[in-house]
Amino acid sequence: MTVVKSPLPEPARQVTFDALQTTLVDLLGLSLIGKQAHWNIVGPRFRSIHLQLDEVVSTARSYADTVAERAAALGLPPDGRPETIASAFTLPSPKDGWLRDEDVVQVIAETLGAAIARLRERITTTAEADPVTQDLLIGITAELEKQRWMFEAENWPREH
Amino acid sequence: MTVVKSPLPEPARQVTFDALQTTLVDLLGLSLIGKQAHWNIVGPRFRSIHLQLDEVVSTARSYADTVAERAAALGLPPDGRPETIASAFTLPSPKDGWLRDEDVVQVIAETLGAAIARLRERITTTAEADPVTQDLLIGITAELEKQRWMFEAENWPREH
Amino acid sequence: MTVVKSPLPEPARQVTFDALQTTLVDLLGLSLIGKQAHWNIVGPRFRSIHLQLDEVVSTARSYADTVAERAAALGLPPDGRPETIASAFTLPSPKDGWLRDEDVVQVIAETLGAAIARLRERITTTAEADPVTQDLLIGITAELEKQRWMFEAENWPREH
Amino acid sequence: MTVVKSPLPEPARQVTFDALQTTLVDLLGLSLIGKQAHWNIVGPRFRSIHLQLDEVVSTARSYADTVAERAAALGLPPDGRPETIASAFTLPSPKDGWLRDEDVVQVIAETLGAAIARLRERITTTAEADPVTQDLLIGITAELEKQRWMFEAENWPREH
Amino acid sequence: MTVVKSPLPEPARQVTFDALQTTLVDLLGLSLIGKQAHWNIVGPRFRSIHLQLDEVVSTARSYADTVAERAAALGLPPDGRPETIASAFTLPSPKDGWLRDEDVVQVIAETLGAAIARLRERITTTAEADPVTQDLLIGITAELEKQRWMFEAENWPREH
Amino acid sequence: MTVVKSPLPEPARQVTFDALQTTLVDLLGLSLIGKQAHWNIVGPRFRSIHLQLDEVVSTARSYADTVAERAAALGLPPDGRPETIASAFTLPSPKDGWLRDEDVVQVIAETLGAAIARLRERITTTAEADPVTQDLLIGITAELEKQRWMFEAENWPREH
Amino acid sequence: MTVVKSPLPEPARQVTFDALQTTLVDLLGLSLIGKQAHWNIVGPRFRSIHLQLDEVVSTARSYADTVAERAAALGLPPDGRPETIASAFTLPSPKDGWLRDEDVVQVIAETLGAAIARLRERITTTAEADPVTQDLLIGITAELEKQRWMFEAENWPREH
Amino acid sequence: MTVVKSPLPEPARQVTFDALQTTLVDLLGLSLIGKQAHWNIVGPRFRSIHLQLDEVVSTARSYADTVAERAAALGLPPDGRPETIASAFTLPSPKDGWLRDEDVVQVIAETLGAAIARLRERITTTAEADPVTQDLLIGITAELEKQRWMFEAENWPREH
Amino acid sequence: MTVVKSPLPEPARQVTFDALQTTLVDLLGLSLIGKQAHWNIVGPRFRSIHLQLDEVVSTARSYADTVAERAAALGLPPDGRPETIASAFTLPSPKDGWLRDEDVVQVIAETLGAAIARLRERITTTAEADPVTQDLLIGITAELEKQRWMFEAENWPREH
Amino acid sequence: MTVVKSPLPEPARQVTFDALQTTLVDLLGLSLIGKQAHWNIVGPRFRSIHLQLDEVVSTARSYADTVAERAAALGLPPDGRPETIASAFTLPSPKDGWLRDEDVVQVIAETLGAAIARLRERITTTAEADPVTQDLLIGITAELEKQRWMFEAENWPREH
Amino acid sequence: MTVVKSPLPEPARQVTFDALQTTLVDLLGLSLIGKQAHWNIVGPRFRSIHLQLDEVVSTARSYADTVAERAAALGLPPDGRPETIASAFTLPSPKDGWLRDEDVVQVIAETLGAAIARLRERITTTAEADPVTQDLLIGITAELEKQRWMFEAENWPREH
Amino acid sequence: MTVVKSPLPEPARQVTFDALQTTLVDLLGLSLIGKQAHWNIVGPRFRSIHLQLDEVVSTARSYADTVAERAAALGLPPDGRPETIASAFTLPSPKDGWLRDEDVVQVIAETLGAAIARLRERITTTAEADPVTQDLLIGITAELEKQRWMFEAENWPREH
Repeated sequence: MTVVKSPLPEPARQVTFDALQTTLVDLLGLSLIGKQAHWNIVGPRFRSIHLQLDEVVSTARSYADTVAERAAALGLPPDGRPETIASAFTLPSPKDGWLRDEDVVQVIAETLGAAIARLRERITTTAEADPVTQDLLIGITAELEKQRWMFEAENWPREH
Repeated sequence: MTVVKSPLPEPARQVTFDALQTTLVDLLGLSLIGKQAHWNIVGPRFRSIHLQLDEVVSTARSYADTVAERAAALGLPPDGRPETIASAFTLPSPKDGWLRDEDVVQVIAETLGAAIARLRERITTTAEADPVTQDLLIGITAELEKQRWMFEAENWPREH
Repeated sequence: MTVVKSPLPEPARQVTFDALQTTLVDLLGLSLIGKQAHWNIVGPRFRSIHLQLDEVVSTARSYADTVAERAAALGLPPDGRPETIASAFTLPSPKDGWLRDEDVVQVIAETLGAAIARLRERITTTAEADPVTQDLLIGITAELEKQRWMFEAENWPREH
Repeated sequence: MTVVKSPLPEPARQVTFDALQTTLVDLLGLSLIGKQAHWNIVGPRFRSIHLQLDEVVSTARSYADTVAERAAALGLPPDGRPETIASAFTLPSPKDGWLRDEDVVQVIAETLGAAIARLRERITTTAEADPVTQDLLIGITAELEKQRWMFEAENWPREH
Repeated sequence: MTVVKSPLPEPARQVTFDALQTTLVDLLGLSLIGKQAHWNIVGPRFRSIHLQLDEVVSTARSYADTVAERAAALGLPPDGRPETIASAFTLPSPKDGWLRDEDVVQVIAETLGAAIARLRERITTTAEADPVTQDLLIGITAELEKQRWMFEAENWPREH
Repeated sequence: MTVVKSPLPEPARQVTFDALQTTLVDLLGLSLIGKQAHWNIVGPRFRSIHLQLDEVVSTARSYADTVAERAAALGLPPDGRPETIASAFTLPSPKDGWLRDEDVVQVIAETLGAAIARLRERITTTAEADPVTQDLLIGITAELEKQRWMFEAENWPREH
Repeated sequence: MTVVKSPLPEPARQVTFDALQTTLVDLLGLSLIGKQAHWNIVGPRFRSIHLQLDEVVSTARSYADTVAERAAALGLPPDGRPETIASAFTLPSPKDGWLRDEDVVQVIAETLGAAIARLRERITTTAEADPVTQDLLIGITAELEKQRWMFEAENWPREH
Repeated sequence: MTVVKSPLPEPARQVTFDALQTTLVDLLGLSLIGKQAHWNIVGPRFRSIHLQLDEVVSTARSYADTVAERAAALGLPPDGRPETIASAFTLPSPKDGWLRDEDVVQVIAETLGAAIARLRERITTTAEADPVTQDLLIGITAELEKQRWMFEAENWPREH
Repeated sequence: MTVVKSPLPEPARQVTFDALQTTLVDLLGLSLIGKQAHWNIVGPRFRSIHLQLDEVVSTARSYADTVAERAAALGLPPDGRPETIASAFTLPSPKDGWLRDEDVVQVIAETLGAAIARLRERITTTAEADPVTQDLLIGITAELEKQRWMFEAENWPREH
Repeated sequence: MTVVKSPLPEPARQVTFDALQTTLVDLLGLSLIGKQAHWNIVGPRFRSIHLQLDEVVSTARSYADTVAERAAALGLPPDGRPETIASAFTLPSPKDGWLRDEDVVQVIAETLGAAIARLRERITTTAEADPVTQDLLIGITAELEKQRWMFEAENWPREH
Repeated sequence: MTVVKSPLPEPARQVTFDALQTTLVDLLGLSLIGKQAHWNIVGPRFRSIHLQLDEVVSTARSYADTVAERAAALGLPPDGRPETIASAFTLPSPKDGWLRDEDVVQVIAETLGAAIARLRERITTTAEADPVTQDLLIGITAELEKQRWMFEAENWPREH
Repeated sequence: MTVVKSPLPEPARQVTFDALQTTLVDLLGLSLIGKQAHWNIVGPRFRSIHLQLDEVVSTARSYADTVAERAAALGLPPDGRPETIASAFTLPSPKDGWLRDEDVVQVIAETLGAAIARLRERITTTAEADPVTQDLLIGITAELEKQRWMFEAENWPREH
């Protein structure tokens, strides 16, 4: 029995749901590793990056909520449980233990870059299936690209 | 050497950057002439238009910031220096000295109309190159069209 | 004589205006029946649904304003007078008198579902005519689909 | 079966309800035509009256809510559905299409004047039946008379 | 010796004071039993009623303060000590121990109903003696009648 | 020619206007002498009374505005010019120069007492002529009686 | 049948509950007599103490809520009904009628002193039984000791 | 006996006090006639000027307070009683009764112009006597000159 | 080499760190499953529990941050990466897919109960090792016990 | 014909206007190059300087508005159009393209230093002509000197 | 080597720095003794003076920050270390131990009076050397003179 | 004669007071040297550390107030006069003159480390004497340990 009716017919519903579910995992993973770096960073840029990471986390959490609720609105239940994130999250991540500030800047720039590449594919995928979801993914991409620029700019020159 | 990595390949990157750089000049120019009119307006509608112009300036400044930061996020540096604006800004503008209220209403309506026409071209240009930038340009257009309507409405009847 | 100049040529202007005018009627009607249910609901879920309905009304009023002002910005006057709403509003509505909470949940879910179906058609219609208006309709759809999910979730299981 | 118990005995309850239901229709109608004028006004006083009309709408919406909830508190369900407003609303209203600013000022002054005259009758009617409701109607009248004065003052001299 | 001079002559002063002192006891008692229910309620509607009761308490506390200060302003000292409330408070109250949500809804509706009946008598009593106090009692009645409606609506159908 | 139409017929309009105009003078005068005492008070209770007087001034200014605008709403222009206040204000007032704190407390209590006595007469006067204005005067009286109580309480024992 | 499961085993649960229930009565009683003094105080320090008493009341109300909800969280229902307070409240209290400012200062200092002595016993009692409750009682003690100091300081020299 | 010690020796103290006392009268008078115009203005610019006048009043009231407290800080009591203002206030003022909007704009521009001329003299007078007071007068002048410009700009062209 | 110096000697440092690291995992896991339930809940109590769960998540996130930063302050790096949570989180959790409201209430009450039991052990463990950390764990326990009570109360009667 | 009357006679008016017009150009130019650096900065101090530059821009914009409105208040129209800034702005500026963080710090310190030197000359120039304008220029100088110190401090040691 | 470049040449720089450094010591000392009195005051005016002293402390802290940062902006490092304040602070101060309220009022009036006398000398000293610093000192003097007046007024009559 | 009665018997009172008085000196000293570093820091991390130091100062000031008021609440007067701080403050401090950013980071980390060590001793000392004071000292320690971690993390690697 249908629990929540969907405004989308199949197969558009499933295509869109897949784009949302994978985005959800990326954003929840990003929120966790952003906090991990926020807590473990050391080095002369500690305070500046420590604060910047909280903006990444805040963005990731807020969009994760929107993405998951959109999945529900399409009639399919999102999955953000710990084991799901652990098994499905594949973006570059910081190692455990203390993290040097310059390494944090570089790995977060890479994480964001990889997340963006995946989002841009989903923008293409959902164009036909659901322009409403596509518009949401475009908004997330714009924000993550802005945040990646800041880490890139902070990361320059890399050989320093 | 690349300073900030771009999420876009060429030629999409350059196409999109051109749309953003010209929009940046239009918005910075608009913010300056909006203030010019804000300071120099005289006539019985002084207070009403004086306040309305500050909303134009506030909008233009806010979007200029977003547009310039998006250019940087695409890996190309934006240019908003005084000489660049002076040489590249081509929208209708108020003359120097005191400005009659009815003339202000008319010229700002024209400035906004010209800016909108240019934005709509860029919406077409960027559709393929970068839907994320296109979405930003659509948002700017919506806001400027709303503001133009208000000046148009205020400007009626023109022969008054 | 033209009162407010349009950024759109014909026939795009009329196509877009029709999409906006019908959306305006749907949203104003929704705001009125949302309040009707807000006032007349009875039953053990009174408080929870009473508050939720005010969010529907707030959303509907806010978007109605944006939609009507967009119509004006396109150079055509919107129509939101009582007699226009009464004759043009066709979405499912609650009956008069006291309303049981479970019936309210169901009818509002249906109203939102019908409004969404009509909005999705207009998203298609305006894609060519005016992407700026299309973007606004996409935003309204996203919000109404979120609100419908909540009533759907609240409505489950239906045979309870 | 009684749904909501009433603090008033008959016939006071029905007399009071009638005063509230007709006030509700007047206020909801006023909120709709206030927005209609807000969107369609043109002329050199556009911005000033455009803003002033939103205060009328805000007042009308807020009091409509209070009035409807008072009816419910008296144990009788209020009716604010579109078709009820359309058939029962009789105050002077603006025509459709663009509206000249001076015509807007005049018609809203007349609408408010007619609404006030009807409210003052209901103040008399409810004095015996329910002083609590009478007090609410007195408050609404005070606010509408203040707003009417502003449109009257703005409307002077009429032959201008 | 007179401590605080009164704006009212006798016997109006005493008549009005009696109306205020009994209202004070009702409101303080209501604030205490509202909290009692807020803490001890259990059942599937726990959260919704738990929050609603805090609005009852907030209203009761705020009006109790106004009522007591009005008594003082009339030159007679109000009495809100624990033993006074305990001996003079006669409205229906919840029993001790855990309280089922549906029982809470019913008893609070009854408490409010009884408080309202007593207030309406005092509105009559003070009409001659002090219209300023009467106006305050009218305002309290309006608010309590609104809150009673909400519990009545929540309480329907009673035989559930 | 009528400038602002009145919702009241004669003689009710003039009766009500007289009540409002004399109240306006009392309130404006009260706001000026409240400030005079605020600036010139000396003694061990300086800070406490200095702050309390600003609440008197704030109240007087706010109600003066409401009273004057109500006069205008009734179609008759209020008069709050310096010379009008100077010639028409008759309430007890502080002398010039430094003022001992205990003298300030006493004179302000007397000023408020006199203002209240005059307001209570106008409440009677306007009951028939305009219940809307009467309701406003009742509200002012309630507030001034509360403030007088505080100065009375502060003034005790008088022979200290 | 257990209604709310307890995180504490017996006898710790009952020991802790007793500490909370007696604290609840002390705080609710304190909030009532604080208001009683707030309304009935007279004398040259009226305003200063009148305001200070509202801070006592606000503190007492806020902690009473926390204490009662902690009792519920331990699985035993708190009791704050009027008759319970009246019979169980034993702290020094002001008499009825007008209260001289210096007497208020002294009696509230004594009330707070007695409440603190009882709280300090409960801090000892709960150390073993429930450190979480002990921590709450420590926090209440810190705040009441701060407030008592202020009344003590205000009360000096006592023979004045 | 000296009540408040002065940081200034004679004759600087008296010179400065005179500058402050005359400024106080100008500002209090300005606040009263600003409100008079605020209430009595009629004409098509009603709302715009009505709001602008409240900014004049707010400025005048705020500076009057600062000026009077500065006089007290210099050890001489300021005088802002109704009769003092009435006899000492000499700036151009509106007549009684309804006021046309264009006349209001002109008279307030003149009032501000006259106030400014008097302030500029006092800036010269106090330069030697008390640079602290001079700095305050400079600040007031800057603000009034800004407000006068706005009325001047609104007043153009005068022969309209 | 020591990266961050510790205020604690061994073995107190390691004992305390273990208590913090396990608490961190519990809180991060709780924040994830709280959101999972927030998104997937269906049933007539949808809105009420949906909102309540966000308070659980907010609490869990805020304390997780404090706990992790405390670990860092003790000189040992906390670990909150996805794989760590997935492998170390052992509290009762909701299954995937839609969740009935009553099941959500029950499982969250169980999750909180289990988390509390583990926290109470750590309160004992850290009493000697670090009273500063113990105080933090006491604060977390108090909050989680309050939230568990609410779900317990909502869950009653269980056989419903 | 005079548009806005001036409180200053010639030649004081022109002297003062020249000081204001050149300050206006410096501040508008500073606001533009501040944003240019805000967008194009790269390097390890990116975030810190990026944020600091927005404070420079905010200061420059706010003072530019005050300066231009002061010119208008003196009866002469200010000029802040793009071409005027481009031709008259002579302070040290960043080049186009990406900017290293250390170069940004140095150039902005130089820009502020040059602006300050010019402002200090104008403080001398306007001392006689208009002390009101001089006071404004003193205020701007104080703020820019504070901001220059911060860039100077950040810039040390220069040979780094 | 110069660390922070100065906008002032010698000897103006040193003269100005001396004025700022001595002001810094006075303000930091004032902030410390203000708190000392805030904590140790006893007597019937406890609460009123206790609160007033926090305004003195807040003012002193805020201006100390501005003064020290201005010294740095002039290129010379300010000194606010404990030993510097202890050796250089010479204003009248309260003794240790409890302080009677009337003694606090008197000593703080004297402290402020002495601080003002020293500030007025520095206003003269810096007039030539740096008008920007002079303007800051004038602002501090105005505020301290206002605060001294309040203590003076509170202190009257001294022989009480 | 006792001025403020103590809730503690001897010797607990004196033991606790000593812990509070020494903590007060440490916190006041910390607030002064924190500001000293805030003003005199230079180097590429200027802005970041400059802002971080203000958080240290804010924390120190706030806790100093709480600590001193707790001493007063225990019936013994705290001592925070300049000479007391200068003679009793023994924590590591920055030297006078400009301070390199890396030296600031190191010395503040050391200051905080020394303050923490002393606080931890007092936590032990007061455990028996006064658990209320102990709880306050635990709270201060938690906050200072968090701030020390941030400077430690910023300070790494030390040999940089």
